[in-house]
Amino acid sequence: MNKWVYAFGDGRADGGASMGGLLGGKGANLAEMSGLGIPVPPGFTITTEVCTHFSRHDGAYPGGLEDQVEQAIEAMEKSLGARFGEAENPLMLSVRSGGRASMPGMMDTVLNLGLNDETVKGLAARSGDERFAYDSYRRFIQMYGDVVLGVDHHHFEELLELYKEEKGVTLDTELGAGDWKVLVGEYGAKVQERLGRPFPQDPKEQLWGAIAAVFGSWMNQRAITYRKLHNIPAEWGTAVNVQAMVFGNMGDDCATGVCFTRNPSTGENAFYGEFLINAQGEDVVAGIRTPQPLTIAEETYAEKTGAHGGLPSLEKSMPDMYADLCGVRTLLEKHYKDMQDMEFTVQQGKLWMLQTRTGKRTAQAAFKIAVDMVSEGLIDKAEAVRRMDPRQMDQILHPTLDPKAERNIIARGLPASPGAASGCIVFNSVDAETRSAAGEKVILVRAETSPEDIGGMYVAQGILTTRGGMTSHAAVVARGMGTPCVSGAGELRIDYAERTVNALGTVLKEGDVITIDGATGHVMEGRVPTIQPELTGDFGTLMEWVDGIRGLGVYANADTPGDAETAIRFGAEGIGLCRTEHMFFKPDRIVHMRRMIVAADETERRAALDTLLPFQRQDFADIFTIMDGLPVTIRLLDPPLHEFLPQADGEMAQVADAAGVPLSQVKARAAQLKETNPMLGHRGCRLGVTYPEMYEMQARAIFEAAADVTGQGKTVLPEVMIPLVGLKKELDELKDLVDRVAAEVREATGVKLHYQVGTMIELPRAALRAGDIARSAEFFSFGTNDLTQMAMGLSRDDAGPFIDIYREKGVLDADPFVTLDQEGVGELVRIAVQRGRAVRPDLKLGICGEHGGDPDSIHFFHQAGLDYVSCSPYRVPIARLAAAQAELGEQAKVDG
Amino acid sequence: MNKWVYAFGDGRADGGASMGGLLGGKGANLAEMSGLGIPVPPGFTITTEVCTHFSRHDGAYPGGLEDQVEQAIEAMEKSLGARFGEAENPLMLSVRSGGRASMPGMMDTVLNLGLNDETVKGLAARSGDERFAYDSYRRFIQMYGDVVLGVDHHHFEELLELYKEEKGVTLDTELGAGDWKVLVGEYGAKVQERLGRPFPQDPKEQLWGAIAAVFGSWMNQRAITYRKLHNIPAEWGTAVNVQAMVFGNMGDDCATGVCFTRNPSTGENAFYGEFLINAQGEDVVAGIRTPQPLTIAEETYAEKTGAHGGLPSLEKSMPDMYADLCGVRTLLEKHYKDMQDMEFTVQQGKLWMLQTRTGKRTAQAAFKIAVDMVSEGLIDKAEAVRRMDPRQMDQILHPTLDPKAERNIIARGLPASPGAASGCIVFNSVDAETRSAAGEKVILVRAETSPEDIGGMYVAQGILTTRGGMTSHAAVVARGMGTPCVSGAGELRIDYAERTVNALGTVLKEGDVITIDGATGHVMEGRVPTIQPELTGDFGTLMEWVDGIRGLGVYANADTPGDAETAIRFGAEGIGLCRTEHMFFKPDRIVHMRRMIVAADETERRAALDTLLPFQRQDFADIFTIMDGLPVTIRLLDPPLHEFLPQADGEMAQVADAAGVPLSQVKARAAQLKETNPMLGHRGCRLGVTYPEMYEMQARAIFEAAADVTGQGKTVLPEVMIPLVGLKKELDELKDLVDRVAAEVREATGVKLHYQVGTMIELPRAALRAGDIARSAEFFSFGTNDLTQMAMGLSRDDAGPFIDIYREKGVLDADPFVTLDQEGVGELVRIAVQRGRAVRPDLKLGICGEHGGDPDSIHFFHQAGLDYVSCSPYRVPIARLAAAQAELGEQAKVDG
Repeated sequence: MNKWVYAFGDGRADGGASMGGLLGGKGANLAEMSGLGIPVPPGFTITTEVCTHFSRHDGAYPGGLEDQVEQAIEAMEKSLGARFGEAENPLMLSVRSGGRASMPGMMDTVLNLGLNDETVKGLAARSGDERFAYDSYRRFIQMYGDVVLGVDHHHFEELLELYKEEKGVTLDTELGAGDWKVLVGEYGAKVQERLGRPFPQDPKEQLWGAIAAVFGSWMNQRAITYRKLHNIPAEWGTAVNVQAMVFGNMGDDCATGVCFTRNPSTGENAFYGEFLINAQGEDVVAGIRTPQPLTIAEETYAEKTGAHGGLPSLEKSMPDMYADLCGVRTLLEKHYKDMQDMEFTVQQGKLWMLQTRTGKRTAQAAFKIAVDMVSEGLIDKAEAVRRMDPRQMDQILHPTLDPKAERNIIARGLPASPGAASGCIVFNSVDAETRSAAGEKVILVRAETSPEDIGGMYVAQGILTTRGGMTSHAAVVARGMGTPCVSGAGELRIDYAERTVNALGTVLKEGDVITIDGATGHVMEGRVPTIQPELTGDFGTLMEWVDGIRGLGVYANADTPGDAETAIRFGAEGIGLCRTEHMFFKPDRIVHMRRMIVAADETERRAALDTLLPFQRQDFADIFTIMDGLPVTIRLLDPPLHEFLPQADGEMAQVADAAGVPLSQVKARAAQLKETNPMLGHRGCRLGVTYPEMYEMQARAIFEAAADVTGQGKTVLPEVMIPLVGLKKELDELKDLVDRVAAEVREATGVKLHYQVGTMIELPRAALRAGDIARSAEFFSFGTNDLTQMAMGLSRDDAGPFIDIYREKGVLDADPFVTLDQEGVGELVRIAVQRGRAVRPDLKLGICGEHGGDPDSIHFFHQAGLDYVSCSPYRVPIARLAAAQAELGEQAKVDG
Repeated sequence: MNKWVYAFGDGRADGGASMGGLLGGKGANLAEMSGLGIPVPPGFTITTEVCTHFSRHDGAYPGGLEDQVEQAIEAMEKSLGARFGEAENPLMLSVRSGGRASMPGMMDTVLNLGLNDETVKGLAARSGDERFAYDSYRRFIQMYGDVVLGVDHHHFEELLELYKEEKGVTLDTELGAGDWKVLVGEYGAKVQERLGRPFPQDPKEQLWGAIAAVFGSWMNQRAITYRKLHNIPAEWGTAVNVQAMVFGNMGDDCATGVCFTRNPSTGENAFYGEFLINAQGEDVVAGIRTPQPLTIAEETYAEKTGAHGGLPSLEKSMPDMYADLCGVRTLLEKHYKDMQDMEFTVQQGKLWMLQTRTGKRTAQAAFKIAVDMVSEGLIDKAEAVRRMDPRQMDQILHPTLDPKAERNIIARGLPASPGAASGCIVFNSVDAETRSAAGEKVILVRAETSPEDIGGMYVAQGILTTRGGMTSHAAVVARGMGTPCVSGAGELRIDYAERTVNALGTVLKEGDVITIDGATGHVMEGRVPTIQPELTGDFGTLMEWVDGIRGLGVYANADTPGDAETAIRFGAEGIGLCRTEHMFFKPDRIVHMRRMIVAADETERRAALDTLLPFQRQDFADIFTIMDGLPVTIRLLDPPLHEFLPQADGEMAQVADAAGVPLSQVKARAAQLKETNPMLGHRGCRLGVTYPEMYEMQARAIFEAAADVTGQGKTVLPEVMIPLVGLKKELDELKDLVDRVAAEVREATGVKLHYQVGTMIELPRAALRAGDIARSAEFFSFGTNDLTQMAMGLSRDDAGPFIDIYREKGVLDADPFVTLDQEGVGELVRIAVQRGRAVRPDLKLGICGEHGGDPDSIHFFHQAGLDYVSCSPYRVPIARLAAAQAELGEQAKVDG
């Protein structure tokens, strides 16, 4: 016979904390506490296996379950001396769901189960409080009616309101036992009216109704949607916890509360919590009454700030109970070795623990608690690292809004790139650059952005778009730059002609100051003060441990000296992707770039390139100087040339003037360069093969800069990266070119240059032919953005709308541009690693797509045997942590 | 010591026909003929390995070569009793290149080598013809000066013209020995003037100069370009053939000619050829003199048509020689078991064979010869199939002139390459390429063609020359390309300066349209209608053998009933790709399609789809009726919706009117649907997942049509194909939808439906996850167009310009959209086959990309284990043949 029911209570338990999969988190921890001798109301857990059986068999239960439940209830009756359904001394039950992870949308709780027209009298007699008994009964009818019978709670609330109106009272507390009795009658009649049958009086029917409601809710639409959004498998199922009721609302020697073993906001090792005298747990959570502080210290602090309404602490008002609770706090934290979030009830002077679980905490608190626990000897450094949530770190790496500051929110969008920023509104890239050059801080506000906006995006403090999702151009570029971004703020209406933006009636014009918070998606009027992240202290300590553990290197994607400095500050060990094209968008350069593009022949192109050479050389020299001794991976020109040409006629005329060619030539060239699918077009190394002079200029700039900076006593380690290689001969041709230029520069300067030539692996063909390509490449860098686009046939610019639908429908679990598709794209990575290393065992392997900063993907890259990941500077600490966790062999265990 | 030199002659030879790789085609066959006892002027072949050594070592020869050449010359001297460089009885040599495949652009031939100021006297004495001797000498200086020394031939031609002017004569034949002596002096002086050194008098120096020129020309630009265009590896190299001279121009008992063992144009088993009395071989090929027919039969025919100027045949004028030649003809065809193309020279009443090779032939001739040789017992059916060139079949699968059409014949020439073509007149290769690039069809009209015209010949619809015979450059090249050609239309007079051609008074100018019929030699004014080819007779017989051999099925891509009928006529065994989107573009449908696209919600979309349903159902019913008993693979809607919307404002307004929505809604929808990379966008099954009602309508149309047609007693085998699947869940969702609709239709009609649901494999991810996808798919069809686009990151719409540069630079060997990239894309196919079949052993596998009609790719698909290929109806016979050849395990051996 399978065991479906696990009992706990009286210092014993069938289960324990390690059985979370079978018993759910709540049930496993109740069992664990009971086993530790902590007072837990006796009860039992029906396993998640029953849920799975229930879902698969149309609501039928496995054989033997009913008997096991009955036996468990008998054991509870024996332990408590009460009997389920007996009028004189009735046993009352709570029924709660409890999966491995807590989940909104599921049926949560039914309290006071077992009450009926008879047992309510017993409860009145034994509690000596008739009002309490009938109040409990009417609460039960409402709760059970709502969540089990499907009679919406507003039906009951209306009856209560009507009754109070008739009585001329406003507060529930003004109602007495008689009133509740009347209402119990009315509630019952309402159930009869809605369902055509009476409220169930049989406690067993009540119990099985509640159990079925919990299991049934596992498959309701909201729960399904939530699971899809959070990657929770449907197979996990939920458990059902049935426990004897304890009452925190049986009088003034009763109370109920929640508490944390440490402060979840600051991480301080101080007991922290809230409670209510004479209340049921739901009252604390619901926020109807103002809760009281737990400790005298909190009480004192609260008095100063006016919080908690000056109410006395548990420590002061129930010192014995407080002492018992402190004992539990110490025991549980020692036992679980992590900060706990607990619920408790005091019934007539006895403390009962209803729940314990790992407590959620802010990123700051997470660092402090982890570091403190190591110095307290509670955990070791590996465990401290293991339990950090890398996703949470974003919070503390960007400037954030000062929590004390006032804010006037005028619109909401998607939290596309974290950090808060203020600046004056500009509506186009040119204005952004102009005002920025004049020293103003700007927020670039656009319907959406395109590669032409790069210049403006680059100088802006923040980016706000009214269209596009989390993977829109604006969002991706902003995250790459570490620039705060709110995308898809659909409530805003931009009028480019008037240079205004209308936020639900508030009209702001160019130059007006706004603040955006890329962590929440909020848009605020005016300047809201921000605070800078602190990268020392506990953060610094823990990151040192992280670096001691991880084997995977962490580089940054950095295109400018500023990026390179940020990268170093955040602990990058090199630059994994320096995109040279951004260097051409600056106003003093774009003109020559365009001249080069519209040139009639190679001679004219070379002339324009000669003008660009010193700019590019200086860019590289600055970056090499900052990165002294660290590798700098430079990607030669990648985007198709049409991205550098303007669209508008007026601007085309400017290009024609500047280049000294007829406008018709510029237009003809633009038309010639236009592409149906630019992503699959004339870009990457295809530019190098067809216009070798462009790559030649770039190679010259790199090596001349390297020679210069080497001459100044620095160590320069350039790695020249050829993009979009699909054929070994492409790489061969361009490697020859790079080697030739290097030899020429060496000849001219007499400086010995150490460099490598490698390629991006971003085409499926390149991954498959990696063995061949590795004969010529000294390193591979996986361009997983493009590799994902090609392998899945998905354009990052276009896929947003249907990716959302795919995720809703469960066709896709995660956005493949955020978290690597390990089965498909990942297989190409594994194939390339294996084939490349087979040919060249010391092949250096890295990845420089967006996935380089995604913890799940980093775990994969670690397993795949890469040498490093490269990500945007702001994600470097996240990547370092994820790399260490990958080394530790498992995911962080901060509970969801 | 390596053997670098292979001697032949006197009924003996070191080599043989099987050594084509080492000796080149010409050398191997010379050796073979010599071994057979056929009279071949003695000589030797320097191997292709020497060429490779020469290329890799900067023009140096391997050790031992010089000795081996000297020994070979000594053997020739002994055999002929003449001595190389000896004044009295000089041995004279021809030096010719000869690779595995003949190749324009290479140095071809130097004749009369060994002549100098002394030996010319010996030649005069021994031939008794001083004029002949000095004419030979001046020809040698010009030829050697031009191709070996680099003194362009026009320098010599100018001297000759000047001399003739002075003398007041117009024809070369009017010059005597004395004149040639003077010119020999002037030619020598010209060489001295141009090079600063005299024309080499040392025969050995002459010989090594000529050998170096042949090897050097292997790496010249034109040869490299040609090799790239024809996928000839540079490593093959060329051999050099050095042979004793025989003279066809030593008097009227001398002649030279070319002949075919069967008629290369019709395939008729009749001896066929042309020759010139008292001429050197180059005179026949150059088309300067009109050649005489070989046989009396030809002579008789020529008399009727006015061709050959009524000159007597060899059979009549030199009956002994003709009898000898007939003997050689019989011997060689029996020996080689294939139609031979031979060159011969008669020197003073003795026949010498200078070359034999497998003869090029028209497609019609190829079928006739193959079928005839099987019935003659010369070859078996497998060999007949094996030697057909599938690329050549295009010639007979395309239309010929409608015999009933009126035509205005303005000139007649030789039927040099069959097929009819119309186009506008161009007079040079550059204009041909320019107009062709602009989308015009052109006919290249020239007095004669040379290797420099290859570019223009390649793009032309047809080629028309006013000089030259059936074996002129124009005729040979055109037949190789399968391009219609009329040669030697002597009635036409071209005025290059005025850009006109005068046809017996009718003056046509550049751009005027003409039609040529390469099967009759007729030239017609204007465009003459054409008709479909006849697929019976020899073609039908051979194709029956083909079908008996092949295992790979051949389906057609067909979107309409008309396509389906053509497919059946060409022998398709099913439809491998029926694209449903084309059905929506018809005027009476596009309006509803657009209404569907701009609809505000699903209800409106369904209303529009309901209107489309009957149209689509009728389309399917028509196709099912035609394809009775054969599978019809229907691809559900694939292209992104924006492809169905108009671009222009006016048309958008029409859409708005028709759909009854405001213009702004149409514009907004168009803007919303716009994509940066449509190839990677919202298309394929993504449409089905996001708008299930569209696929539902299509599935309903398919099954209702199937039920109808089944009811009429036909067998309907629909295979519903879901495009662009990358994720198994996409397929699952849509397969469920299709199955549900099928069940509904079965329920409603009571007709049992036999159908399959499968998917295209066109994303790299789908290929990698084929094992997973095969759990739901009953068949795979490889969409190799998209698979190539995604795997290589190449947009077919955009890649043209740089693919050309890639091919020129040798970065790509072939256009991957024409011939499958077997290493990259092909690996994905192999992976998918293996993984799919591992899960579902009876998985049906096909391919429906352009590659389905490409012979090389078909070989690959056969090896990969596919069940069928599907291609355009006109390519079905080609695919059938290629499939049979793949089964036979090797490529067709029709020599290049």
